[in-house]
Amino acid sequence: MTPHQEGPRREPYSIQRLEAFSDGVFAIAITLLILDVRVPRDLPQTTRLADAMLAAWPSYFAFLTSFATIGIMWMNHHRLFRIIARADHALLIWNGLLLLGITFVPFPTALIAEYIQRPDQRTAAMVLGGTYVFLALMFNGLWWHAARGRRLLGEALDEAGVRAISRSYAIGPAAYLMTFLLALVNAPASLGLNLLLAAFYALPARLLPRPFR
Amino acid sequence: MTPHQEGPRREPYSIQRLEAFSDGVFAIAITLLILDVRVPRDLPQTTRLADAMLAAWPSYFAFLTSFATIGIMWMNHHRLFRIIARADHALLIWNGLLLLGITFVPFPTALIAEYIQRPDQRTAAMVLGGTYVFLALMFNGLWWHAARGRRLLGEALDEAGVRAISRSYAIGPAAYLMTFLLALVNAPASLGLNLLLAAFYALPARLLPRPFR
Amino acid sequence: MTPHQEGPRREPYSIQRLEAFSDGVFAIAITLLILDVRVPRDLPQTTRLADAMLAAWPSYFAFLTSFATIGIMWMNHHRLFRIIARADHALLIWNGLLLLGITFVPFPTALIAEYIQRPDQRTAAMVLGGTYVFLALMFNGLWWHAARGRRLLGEALDEAGVRAISRSYAIGPAAYLMTFLLALVNAPASLGLNLLLAAFYALPARLLPRPFR
Amino acid sequence: MTPHQEGPRREPYSIQRLEAFSDGVFAIAITLLILDVRVPRDLPQTTRLADAMLAAWPSYFAFLTSFATIGIMWMNHHRLFRIIARADHALLIWNGLLLLGITFVPFPTALIAEYIQRPDQRTAAMVLGGTYVFLALMFNGLWWHAARGRRLLGEALDEAGVRAISRSYAIGPAAYLMTFLLALVNAPASLGLNLLLAAFYALPARLLPRPFR
Repeated sequence: MTPHQEGPRREPYSIQRLEAFSDGVFAIAITLLILDVRVPRDLPQTTRLADAMLAAWPSYFAFLTSFATIGIMWMNHHRLFRIIARADHALLIWNGLLLLGITFVPFPTALIAEYIQRPDQRTAAMVLGGTYVFLALMFNGLWWHAARGRRLLGEALDEAGVRAISRSYAIGPAAYLMTFLLALVNAPASLGLNLLLAAFYALPARLLPRPFR
Repeated sequence: MTPHQEGPRREPYSIQRLEAFSDGVFAIAITLLILDVRVPRDLPQTTRLADAMLAAWPSYFAFLTSFATIGIMWMNHHRLFRIIARADHALLIWNGLLLLGITFVPFPTALIAEYIQRPDQRTAAMVLGGTYVFLALMFNGLWWHAARGRRLLGEALDEAGVRAISRSYAIGPAAYLMTFLLALVNAPASLGLNLLLAAFYALPARLLPRPFR
Repeated sequence: MTPHQEGPRREPYSIQRLEAFSDGVFAIAITLLILDVRVPRDLPQTTRLADAMLAAWPSYFAFLTSFATIGIMWMNHHRLFRIIARADHALLIWNGLLLLGITFVPFPTALIAEYIQRPDQRTAAMVLGGTYVFLALMFNGLWWHAARGRRLLGEALDEAGVRAISRSYAIGPAAYLMTFLLALVNAPASLGLNLLLAAFYALPARLLPRPFR
Repeated sequence: MTPHQEGPRREPYSIQRLEAFSDGVFAIAITLLILDVRVPRDLPQTTRLADAMLAAWPSYFAFLTSFATIGIMWMNHHRLFRIIARADHALLIWNGLLLLGITFVPFPTALIAEYIQRPDQRTAAMVLGGTYVFLALMFNGLWWHAARGRRLLGEALDEAGVRAISRSYAIGPAAYLMTFLLALVNAPASLGLNLLLAAFYALPARLLPRPFR
C-alpha cells in the first residue's frame, strides 16, 4: 500500500504528455514515408528521368495512400483525446499498441511499392490489410477501455454520443478485414478499398449517413 | 443529431495540438534533408576527399535551398496560426495537405542534387517547381478557408490586415508557376528564382514594397 | 557571483522543455526501429515473398522487443517526471545520458536481427544486454540525484513512496546484468529474459508482488 | 501601414512554438546520429563480429562526440530561452541559422567516422571544426540580437548577468576556430579539443574559473 502503488489513481498520468509523445510518433511515421520514394539512379543512357519516374508510380501511390491513412488516424486520435479526459496505466498500454501499428505502416507501404506489379502483390496487400485490421482493433480497444462506465471520459459527451462513437468504431475491424480478404483474390481492388475507407473516415460526421454517425 | 456529430462545432479541434503535430512534421522534414548529403565513399586512390566534396556541390546547394524553403514555410505557418484562433474539420484537411507537400520536399531536393549536372536537370527542376506550386496553393486554400467571413480568425487582425495577407499569398502560386515554367527552358535559372522567392518570403513585412504588404 | 551563475538555482530549468525534448527523442528512436525491418528485394525467381518474410522473422522479433522496451521506458520516464518537480543542471546531464542509451537502442536491435541465427549471436545479445544495463544504471542515477534529500521532488510522494521506487529501480541493473551474462552462454535465453523484464516493468505497480512494489 | 505589417510588434511570435520547433529539430538530429553507426554486414568467414566492431571504433567515437555536442547545445538553447522573453522576426532567422548548423552535424560526424584512419582525416576534421565555428557564431548572433539594449530579454537577468553571458559566448568562435586550425596539422588533436570544449560547456557556471563565468 505504498503511495507509488496508489499514485496512478490519485495523480493520473498526464494526457498532455501522452498526446505530445503520440504526436511525435505520428509526425515521424508520416514523414519517414518519403524515404521509400527513391530517386531513380544509374539510369541507362537511353532512359529519360521522366519515364523512370512514371514507371515508379507505385511508390508515389503507396506514399499517398499511407500519408492519407496516418493523417486520418492522427485526426481520429486527436478527436478521441478531446473526449478522453484522464489517463491510466492500461490506456497508455492501449495507446502504445496503437502507436506500434502506426510506426509499422511504412513497412507494408514499402512492400506494396516494391511488389504491386509482381506475382507477390497479394502477399503485400495482405500485410497492409492486416496492419490496418490491427490498427482498427487497437482503436476499438483504446476506446472501449476509456468509455466503459465512462471510466476516463470527461463531461463533454452524453451517453448517445458515446454509443455513436462505439458504433462508428465497431465497423472498422470488419471493414479492414474485408480489405484483407479481398487481398487474397485481387490486390489492386484491396488497395482501392483501403483508399475508400480512408476517404470515409476523413469525412466530417455530419456528412455520414445516419447509421454510421 | 448525436453530440458526436455536433462535437466539432461545440468543442472545436485543438489549435495547440494541430500546431504540435505540424511542428513535428516541419522539424522532421527539415532535419531529414541532411540524409541526402552523402559522405563520399570508395574514392579512387588518386582522388582527394576535398575534391570529391567540391564535385558534390549540388547536394549542398539543394540541402541549403530546401532547408531555407521549409524553414520559411514554418515561419509562415507560425505567423498564420497567430491569427487563426479556431480549428474545424476542413482546416485539419487543408493543413494535412500542406504537410503532405512539406514531407514531399526531400524527394525533389534529392532529385535536383542527383540530376542538376545532367541532361535531365529540367525534369528535376520541374518536379521541384511543381511541389512549390502545390504548397503555395495549399497555403492559399488554408488561409481562404480560415479567413472567409472571418470564420476561424480571432480579433487580432482587422479587415485591412486580412486583405493584406490574402494579397500577399495570392502571388505565391503565380510566382512558383513561373519557376515551374522556367524549368522547361533553363533549370539553373528556375532554381535561382526559387531562392529569390524564399528570400522574398523571409523578409519581414515592413521591408516589402507596399503592394506586396 | 553573477546572476547567470546563480540562475539555475533561482530560476530552475524548465521541466516542461526537458519533457518535450525527451518525448521527441523517445518518439523518434521508437519510430526509427522500423527502418531496420527491410523489404525483401531481388528475390530469386523461385522464392515467394511470404517465405522470404518468414525467414526474416528475427528482424520482426527484434523490432517488437525494442519497441516494447523503449515504449515501457517512456512510460517510466513519464511516471518519474510526475514526481520530479524541479530540474537542475545535473538532472539534465543524467537525462541526457539516459537519452544517449535510448537513441543507441536501434543499433543493438539491428545487430540482433542480423546475427541471431549465426555463430556471433552471443556477441550481439551481449551488446543489447550491455545497452540495457547502461539504461538501468542511468535511470537509477537520475532517480537518486532527484530523490536524495528530496532535492527535486514535489510534495506528491511520501518517504515510503520514495523508498518503494528506489527499491524497484535498484533491481534493474542487477536483472539486466543477468541478461548480459546469460548472453555469454545462450543468446536466445538472454533475449527471452529481456522480454520478460519488459513485461515485468509494464505491469502496473499494484499487480507486483509486495517486495517489488 | 497594415495591421499585418505591424503584427509582429503588437503580437510577437510565440516563444513557445519556437521552442517546440527547435526541440523537435534538436531531438531528431541527435537521434539520427545512430543511423551512421552501421551494423557490420557480409563479414568474411574468418572475421568475428566482436573484432569487426572494435575495428569500427571511429563510428562509435564520432557518435558519442556529436551526441554530446548536440546535447550540450540543446542545454545552452534551453538556458538562453529561459532568459529571452520575446521573439521577433530576426530572432526566428537567427534561430533558423542555428538549427541549420544543428541539422548539418550528422554529416561531418559521418565524415569523421569514415576518414579518421585515412590520409584525408584532416579534411574531415576541418569540416567538423568549421561546422562548430558556424554554430558558435550563430549562438553569438542570436544572443547579441536578443540582448542588445535588452531588446528581447525579460526581467530575470541584470546587466552584469547579460555581460557574463556575452563574455562566455564570445570565447566560443575563437575556441572552435582553434579546433579548425588544429585540424590542418593534426586531426586527432583537433577532435580531442572538440571533446574538451564540449565538456567545458557542459559544466555548470559555478564550477568555471571566474573569467569564464
